[in-house]
Amino acid sequence: MKVIKLEDLLGTEREVKSPAGWTSVRFLLKKDGMGFSFHETTFPPGLRFDMHYKHHLEAVFCYRGRGVLTNRDTGEKFVIEPGTVYALDQHDRHTLEAETELKLVCAFNPPVTGNEIHDADGAYLPDTGD
Amino acid sequence: MKVIKLEDLLGTEREVKSPAGWTSVRFLLKKDGMGFSFHETTFPPGLRFDMHYKHHLEAVFCYRGRGVLTNRDTGEKFVIEPGTVYALDQHDRHTLEAETELKLVCAFNPPVTGNEIHDADGAYLPDTGD
Repeated sequence: MKVIKLEDLLGTEREVKSPAGWTSVRFLLKKDGMGFSFHETTFPPGLRFDMHYKHHLEAVFCYRGRGVLTNRDTGEKFVIEPGTVYALDQHDRHTLEAETELKLVCAFNPPVTGNEIHDADGAYLPDTGD
Repeated sequence: MKVIKLEDLLGTEREVKSPAGWTSVRFLLKKDGMGFSFHETTFPPGLRFDMHYKHHLEAVFCYRGRGVLTNRDTGEKFVIEPGTVYALDQHDRHTLEAETELKLVCAFNPPVTGNEIHDADGAYLPDTGD
């Protein structure tokens, strides 16, 4: 059993602050052996960010805030609010825009190693064996 | 892309109400093809419940409420509060007690099929191919 407190990860390599403005705290990474990674991500109000996880499936639960998710493959838009889950099961190109601060709980399969960066397309690069 | 609203699952087979008092809303199950399942679980104040996932790994993020998690294998106790994650990476026998209503976001690997029940030990039974 592992018990991990958010406050203990702040300022460590498990708190990733994007130059774009979002912050992602990685509670569980590949090396934790769960078969998925488990993060809390914060989008500040007004942030609009394009993503495309070519190599991962991701599920996201919103527990606070309000925003809009756009599926850039289809043009569809969805309100994101507490109690909304979205699942990127088709490696969907997507844009998330926060109207108020968004608090999101995210699971990735395969698990993120912690060393990925978003490339120019907003993807995480594939795992290279870490 | 799937976008799922909590309110749309209430009263369906994806809202599981335990006779013990907890409720689990299954946003993503095995058949959703994510490689993990993704739930929101609510423990009402005062509920104390023994669990033992012999066949699954589980990670849990608390976003509201306060409780105590006991590792029944070691006797250790941990405060569960917003921003706490616990990971059952050793199929740990555990007890969760809610002091106030606990709101939990849970990921299971392998994914729950939706048909499991807790057996007498508090385990989910293994997947039989659904």
